[in-house]
Amino acid sequence: MSEALRVGIAGLGTVGASVARVLAEKAAELTRQCGRPIAVAGVSARDRSRDRGVDLSGATWFDDPAELAKSDGIDVFVELIGGEEGAARACVEAALAAGRHVVTANKALLARHGLELAAIAERNGVLLNYEAAVAGGIPVIKTMREALAGNTVSRVFGILNGTCNYILTRMEAEGLSFEECLKDAQRLGYAEADPTFDIEGHDTAHKLAILTSLAFGSRIAPDDIYLEGISNITQADIRAAAELGYRIKLLGVGQRTEGGIEQRVHPTMVPTASVIAQVNGVTNAVAIETDIVGELLLSGPGAGGNATASAVVGDLADIAKSRPGFQHGPVFGRPAGELAPYRRAPMRSHAGGYFIRLTVHDRVGVFAAVARRMADNEISLESIVQHANGANPDTQKTVILVTHETTEAAVRKAVAGITEDGHLTTKPQVIRIERAG
Amino acid sequence: MSEALRVGIAGLGTVGASVARVLAEKAAELTRQCGRPIAVAGVSARDRSRDRGVDLSGATWFDDPAELAKSDGIDVFVELIGGEEGAARACVEAALAAGRHVVTANKALLARHGLELAAIAERNGVLLNYEAAVAGGIPVIKTMREALAGNTVSRVFGILNGTCNYILTRMEAEGLSFEECLKDAQRLGYAEADPTFDIEGHDTAHKLAILTSLAFGSRIAPDDIYLEGISNITQADIRAAAELGYRIKLLGVGQRTEGGIEQRVHPTMVPTASVIAQVNGVTNAVAIETDIVGELLLSGPGAGGNATASAVVGDLADIAKSRPGFQHGPVFGRPAGELAPYRRAPMRSHAGGYFIRLTVHDRVGVFAAVARRMADNEISLESIVQHANGANPDTQKTVILVTHETTEAAVRKAVAGITEDGHLTTKPQVIRIERAG
Repeated sequence: MSEALRVGIAGLGTVGASVARVLAEKAAELTRQCGRPIAVAGVSARDRSRDRGVDLSGATWFDDPAELAKSDGIDVFVELIGGEEGAARACVEAALAAGRHVVTANKALLARHGLELAAIAERNGVLLNYEAAVAGGIPVIKTMREALAGNTVSRVFGILNGTCNYILTRMEAEGLSFEECLKDAQRLGYAEADPTFDIEGHDTAHKLAILTSLAFGSRIAPDDIYLEGISNITQADIRAAAELGYRIKLLGVGQRTEGGIEQRVHPTMVPTASVIAQVNGVTNAVAIETDIVGELLLSGPGAGGNATASAVVGDLADIAKSRPGFQHGPVFGRPAGELAPYRRAPMRSHAGGYFIRLTVHDRVGVFAAVARRMADNEISLESIVQHANGANPDTQKTVILVTHETTEAAVRKAVAGITEDGHLTTKPQVIRIERAG
Repeated sequence: MSEALRVGIAGLGTVGASVARVLAEKAAELTRQCGRPIAVAGVSARDRSRDRGVDLSGATWFDDPAELAKSDGIDVFVELIGGEEGAARACVEAALAAGRHVVTANKALLARHGLELAAIAERNGVLLNYEAAVAGGIPVIKTMREALAGNTVSRVFGILNGTCNYILTRMEAEGLSFEECLKDAQRLGYAEADPTFDIEGHDTAHKLAILTSLAFGSRIAPDDIYLEGISNITQADIRAAAELGYRIKLLGVGQRTEGGIEQRVHPTMVPTASVIAQVNGVTNAVAIETDIVGELLLSGPGAGGNATASAVVGDLADIAKSRPGFQHGPVFGRPAGELAPYRRAPMRSHAGGYFIRLTVHDRVGVFAAVARRMADNEISLESIVQHANGANPDTQKTVILVTHETTEAAVRKAVAGITEDGHLTTKPQVIRIERAG
């Protein structure tokens, strides 16, 4: 029996407590799998007295997580403090610099400072593992970083935020408004009191930035992301989508194009018969398209104490199986110094299908004017649905257009033209369509 | 730059040639990812002269794969010969015994001799990687062996044979018979001239045996599998399934029960709205249920030269990232000597829902007799559909029963009773229902 891998856990909230419990309850099996025990040697959290359902009396208590991070008594520092700056960042830097491996679930920290942290880890010959940072319990980091070696990724996309997917699923299933579903999500603990970070797509963007770097071997670029949340999605959109054979999901999409890399987060129409369209509720999913394997899809729980703990424990087991002197694969697939500069493709050149929903005055010539604006911008239409507007059936009409592949620039110009023409009674709705298998 | 990892490839068919091509075309990126080159140092195949679309002039040619297996010129032996005995087995044993790592796509070899081979690999401190052996390009071995450390699996199930899934998908989409779809699959190269191995479930069983061992830490038991193929699935079943909200898939299921482990391969009804129900054509999928992460689902291409090569290259990259002295995780999750004896749960105690389709004479009292047999065996029914039989509408009726959870034993007894009663005009059809998210 080799010596135990000594773990220090900073942050004993839901995830931290769950990690400690799993390590205790599965100690025998983990030892069998890893060839040595994984022992919690140190812990740090705000409240020392709270009962976390696990006996931590064998671990040394640190009031200051920074002391734990560089303690000689640990081999791995598990960062579950959260936040992109402050204690989390300082501790992870200190731990790596002191030659400790680090496991973290902190997507914001990685999206913002991943490159520097990877460089420190690689310089010190230690691992920085972060499976829990993206899509919770789904092993997407392992898949992209290890399993897909030799594959050139063309597109990675996914449902990366459980709150948004829960809201959209309930809106579709029960015909409720966005606001009603959000309130329920808050009541059930799926959404924060201030839900902005989730529903406006920022959380998805952090995760996407990490996936994009892994996919394309480029530097993480969390600010170069086109961002649109789900707060303006209405029942009219959901119903029209269903009618046309689509479902609306908030996707994060990273895509290699001739003009550079697209990173975009927006409500997206995916075909109802696609696998990703069936991913409902708080479940997450990631699809990866490459030149060799084709398309993979992974789905599972994207959040929650246990699912996140599962990823953290998997990361710890990988470290336990390694031994001093083992040279690890690089943190973001390529060595940090060899990650290519991020070359952002302008959103205006995005190519794809579009769903456009217009509410127009019911008068002669409106439809012809709309069609003219489309033709002027060389947008060809896959389908056109026109019917009486639900709210004002006597005076207004709803026009729904689905385009063949065109560009963002063309659609924006056409919609601006239609708006200019003065036929619209409300703001036009534009939702991008994404191919999905 | 470290020294190259020297690879010997035995078998240069579709997969072997594809592996060599990927290693050549992606050499620079693989070197970046692994910290050293992966070089094809030796090859062995039947036909030396064939053009395989890749320059192999830098590799030493071995007429005898066994010589390649133990050659001092290689660090890893890639076995793509196939077959559970003969050259494949001898070469893998020789390579492991000589201290070479082995990568193989050979499910039959692993299902039959995996335990002995794992013991040899572990004794010699080398890796035996086999991602390509189950579900082709889907990283299910890596997920189960590494990512899910600490998770206790309760059930693993999947669509593991592309031929069967292609046939069932076309039967449903186009209303064609099993025979017509099989013929098309053969024409397109998705099915062999003798399709028995695929359509009767043997191929699925080999893969399931490997997954079950990984899932439950038990010895591989390829013969302890309940087996039913898809050749008796008819349009009447497909249509009835659709009517009741189900789709028929050939699943391999490994499940932990109080009485032991169930391993079963059979046509299965899964809810139409489930993710796995959307996995169509030759695509494979595996779902894994555990106590910690909950349910994961992975889908992707299960066969084909490139998808299989992707898995082989991923396995090679993992080896390239490791270094001498590194202690690897065990081949089947636990050390071979600690895998538990396989304890088979009797199929008669399988608990679940059942679909039962009966064709009966249209006469008074038949329905009452059927209902009586169900009640006598304490089977409660979720739904009952009765309608005129398509083939003989004047004299026969079709009765479709969907049961609540009951046991295999009860259903067999009830169906035997109904058969005894003499009301049936044809053999009864029984299809198991599987919960799926």
